[in-house]
Amino acid sequence: MAAREFDPTTAPPPASPGTLARHAGQTLAEQLAAQFTERIRQRLLAPGARLPSVRECARRHGVSPHTVVAAYDQLLAQGLVEARRQRGFFVRDAQHRPATPSSAPALTPPVDATALIRGMFAGAGDRPAPGLGTLPPDWLDLPLLTSTLRRVLTQADPVAALQYGHPSGDPRLRNALAVRLADFGVRAEPRQIITATGATHALDLISRTLLRPGDAVLVDEPAWAVEYARLTQLGVRLLPVPRTPDGPDLAVMAALVQAHQPRLYVTVSVLHNPTGGSLSLGTAHQVLKLAEAHDFWVVEDDTYAHLAPPHLPRMAALDGLQRTLYVSGFSKILSPGWRVGFLAAPQTLVERLVDTKLLSTLTTPALLEQAMALCLEQGALRRHAERVVQRLDGARQRTVQLAEAHGCRFVTPPAGLFGWVDTGTDTEALAQAMHDDGWLLAPGHLFHARRQPTTLMRINFATSQDAGFWRAYARVRQRR
Amino acid sequence: MAAREFDPTTAPPPASPGTLARHAGQTLAEQLAAQFTERIRQRLLAPGARLPSVRECARRHGVSPHTVVAAYDQLLAQGLVEARRQRGFFVRDAQHRPATPSSAPALTPPVDATALIRGMFAGAGDRPAPGLGTLPPDWLDLPLLTSTLRRVLTQADPVAALQYGHPSGDPRLRNALAVRLADFGVRAEPRQIITATGATHALDLISRTLLRPGDAVLVDEPAWAVEYARLTQLGVRLLPVPRTPDGPDLAVMAALVQAHQPRLYVTVSVLHNPTGGSLSLGTAHQVLKLAEAHDFWVVEDDTYAHLAPPHLPRMAALDGLQRTLYVSGFSKILSPGWRVGFLAAPQTLVERLVDTKLLSTLTTPALLEQAMALCLEQGALRRHAERVVQRLDGARQRTVQLAEAHGCRFVTPPAGLFGWVDTGTDTEALAQAMHDDGWLLAPGHLFHARRQPTTLMRINFATSQDAGFWRAYARVRQRR
Repeated sequence: MAAREFDPTTAPPPASPGTLARHAGQTLAEQLAAQFTERIRQRLLAPGARLPSVRECARRHGVSPHTVVAAYDQLLAQGLVEARRQRGFFVRDAQHRPATPSSAPALTPPVDATALIRGMFAGAGDRPAPGLGTLPPDWLDLPLLTSTLRRVLTQADPVAALQYGHPSGDPRLRNALAVRLADFGVRAEPRQIITATGATHALDLISRTLLRPGDAVLVDEPAWAVEYARLTQLGVRLLPVPRTPDGPDLAVMAALVQAHQPRLYVTVSVLHNPTGGSLSLGTAHQVLKLAEAHDFWVVEDDTYAHLAPPHLPRMAALDGLQRTLYVSGFSKILSPGWRVGFLAAPQTLVERLVDTKLLSTLTTPALLEQAMALCLEQGALRRHAERVVQRLDGARQRTVQLAEAHGCRFVTPPAGLFGWVDTGTDTEALAQAMHDDGWLLAPGHLFHARRQPTTLMRINFATSQDAGFWRAYARVRQRR
Repeated sequence: MAAREFDPTTAPPPASPGTLARHAGQTLAEQLAAQFTERIRQRLLAPGARLPSVRECARRHGVSPHTVVAAYDQLLAQGLVEARRQRGFFVRDAQHRPATPSSAPALTPPVDATALIRGMFAGAGDRPAPGLGTLPPDWLDLPLLTSTLRRVLTQADPVAALQYGHPSGDPRLRNALAVRLADFGVRAEPRQIITATGATHALDLISRTLLRPGDAVLVDEPAWAVEYARLTQLGVRLLPVPRTPDGPDLAVMAALVQAHQPRLYVTVSVLHNPTGGSLSLGTAHQVLKLAEAHDFWVVEDDTYAHLAPPHLPRMAALDGLQRTLYVSGFSKILSPGWRVGFLAAPQTLVERLVDTKLLSTLTTPALLEQAMALCLEQGALRRHAERVVQRLDGARQRTVQLAEAHGCRFVTPPAGLFGWVDTGTDTEALAQAMHDDGWLLAPGHLFHARRQPTTLMRINFATSQDAGFWRAYARVRQRR
């Protein structure tokens, strides 16, 4: 699992739990140094934090003190840590770390956000991770995915899947998606649909096509940090709009629109991450009226589409894809690793979006798109989604009971995959303490455009039913 | 094949050559309109060009005149063509076409370049396409690719391929790549390697990470238009350096460096596209000295690595990945459609590059990367590449004879996949005329940073051995 590859300190390779293994081309010291580098990157070891003593580290990892000294030397050489006389080794501030060549551009990527995001990928070993952003692996339908791929490999024209393919994406998948979108009332021609390497790529294509540095963009707050980070990297100004249970706060949005003339508004309308809330029909209508009056685009990220009741309104359905761009994918229902996502756009934008796709990746893997088309065409995805939704309903019920019994308050009514809860304590510190215990949390500051202390956190209903987790949570809360 | 999807006018579905077929959800008129839209987009019908008369078009496509009128009406409604009284329908200028909302940003993507690139994808039906940028499909080892994918599906931990995977890319592939790079003398640790959705994506990640609008970038001229287009879209200034048989013209490069302080130099060092030339050891050394003295990065695109003799020098080998970023992939040897590429970068840049990757696509499809790792580990790729090189040697010999017999002069000594030839006539017009005959060419203006008339064109040695092509070429040349 991906989880294992990230933080070997807490999730060692299965063969040799808790210790390092000698393997080709990397000494034990190099491996140990790499582990610390990763933890520093992920901010699990924050600037100023002290590394364990040489003796303690040697004991934990089952290596000689000499190996630890060699590893710490490498971290020193990389400028990641500094030695303080008589006190030990400490993580340095990122801005004090060296970069070469000397003229490396001053444009700093949003390291902080991405470091946190990487932490989210890390998981914390084999335990269920309440901070996880996807369904747990054992909820996925592996036989379905495997058999579908096999069928694509034995199809009539397997050579097709080896070629670059259509710049807009596999035609069969785009046909199937057009049919699927009609279920939500979103009427898109296949030629309005462009596939992408996951919904993230679709959002990136849109941002790159429609935005220039200095543009203003409305975003929900809270929302998923990747979106903030990407927009920040593009040099645009974020205009956070508080998310109410019904959708964006319309009064705040109207004021921001007046003051800043935004170019677009990016939102998750249905089963919003992290609150689980969905846009009401009335709010959707008001947002579109604002967009029309002030001439901005709406980007509707419908990543959680398959977990939602079909009746929930989509802005793209109201608007007929005139002013909205619709984005979705399959990472939250079929397979994050296939990286199949897509967008549906107004016809007038399609050509420019395909241009941006060509410049970013030429095309996308036809093989995986054809397999996805099969899943859609034959109803397999629909049946799988129905099972998942049912299972998730049960998990949500159990998790809500456990969470409330442990003093958590749901800020928005529990729905979909995520719960947004108030813990009553600073969740950044809480997440750090829980991580030391081997549990991954998703603290609230991950979801804010401006970093600030918060007592909120996001929990994944599918992975937070474990009584052991809540016992650990109670212990850590008590210590604080 | 992808070729068919693009220009159905010249490459109709196999079932009904030359005519349109009624299929679900699209009328004949809509299909016909879509075909013209595509041709206009690809600039096969340039602004000002006249559409065929209604009667002629109806005859060609085997539909009623009424259907043609309906299709032309759709093109009119889309603003793609205009009706001129008594004269017929003419393609409008792109800038006169409508866009909504009215405030669509003024940033125009390099439509011209990408339109041409799309044409390159199109092919011209089932005939061999001398303008093709890849190996023809029947040169690929389909059984190898299929059996490798099957093996990945039945491996010990198939769940791993469903998860997001490591942000840097599949660890097994990165290990295999590190071993492979050592063959060229490029010493990269697996942690310096980042996978991408094809080499194009790797180049895009580098540009986005290192460049800001207004930066100056050295590029080869001629070179592949996608690179020019991407850099232009990022708002950087291109500094074209003429490509000599030995590599970049050093005197021009030195002068440009003095005058513009470029941030980086992007080049294909080995089997350069389109000239087929490779960097000499001496030129490589001089370029690196310039880069060091003037503090710019070198991006070495080694897309044709597998077709080259192993002894050809790579700048990343000379430089030890200090100031160079190495990019390659498998589109030119195993499968364009898998979209597996990678970069190897100085350790100090890795973290920022991974950040950019996370923001652009989160991760890349682990399944295809694991299959690629298998191909590398077991020597299958090496054996396949040896067979391809041998076959290409024969094809090159035959093509050179045919080309020279038809008055083409090789500007650089024939090598690798591409020949760069002087035809003695304007190749843009030549390509247009040949396309009407069903042959895809790659005219020289595709490879120039500043569009200008040229008598040069690129031919693919694997797809230009057909005597029928050269007969058609001779006919078209004679008419001109």
